[in-house]
Amino acid sequence: MNSYQARVEVKLKPGHVDSEGLTTEKALNDMDYSVEEVSTAKVFEIKLTASSLEEAESEIKDMCKKLLANPVKDDYKVEVEKAE
Amino acid sequence: MNSYQARVEVKLKPGHVDSEGLTTEKALNDMDYSVEEVSTAKVFEIKLTASSLEEAESEIKDMCKKLLANPVKDDYKVEVEKAE
Repeated sequence: MNSYQARVEVKLKPGHVDSEGLTTEKALNDMDYSVEEVSTAKVFEIKLTASSLEEAESEIKDMCKKLLANPVKDDYKVEVEKAE
Repeated sequence: MNSYQARVEVKLKPGHVDSEGLTTEKALNDMDYSVEEVSTAKVFEIKLTASSLEEAESEIKDMCKKLLANPVKDDYKVEVEKAE
């Protein structure tokens, strides 16, 4: 078995209200910055054990579907590489 | 004035307990994945107006110090480019 390092970025799908983004945008403009738009995303960095890169990728996508991302409102991007 | 697109990634400094990471790690292992470690980060994508790339970068770093990142416990990475 080998160690793999995965990076998962979870972001709201277009059309869903990013309340944290809106709040941050307002706060920054209240502080006199010239901000047009703010959106937010969550990143998970996961170190996992798997027998191959393909298996690690499949496990991570499975984790996204079951826990890390809400299939209704979230999009997610996955990058996996062998851990150093 | 021009539009610039910035990406700010805020992550806990080493040594600070990432409770969300720990909770996620435990949940994934309880679901029988072989996860060794999970850490989390927050990403802000900010569209702003500035007179130059240098000014946009300086404004974004200022925003990090004043609002987006807690100087005591957070590290942050900034990338800024001209908006398409």
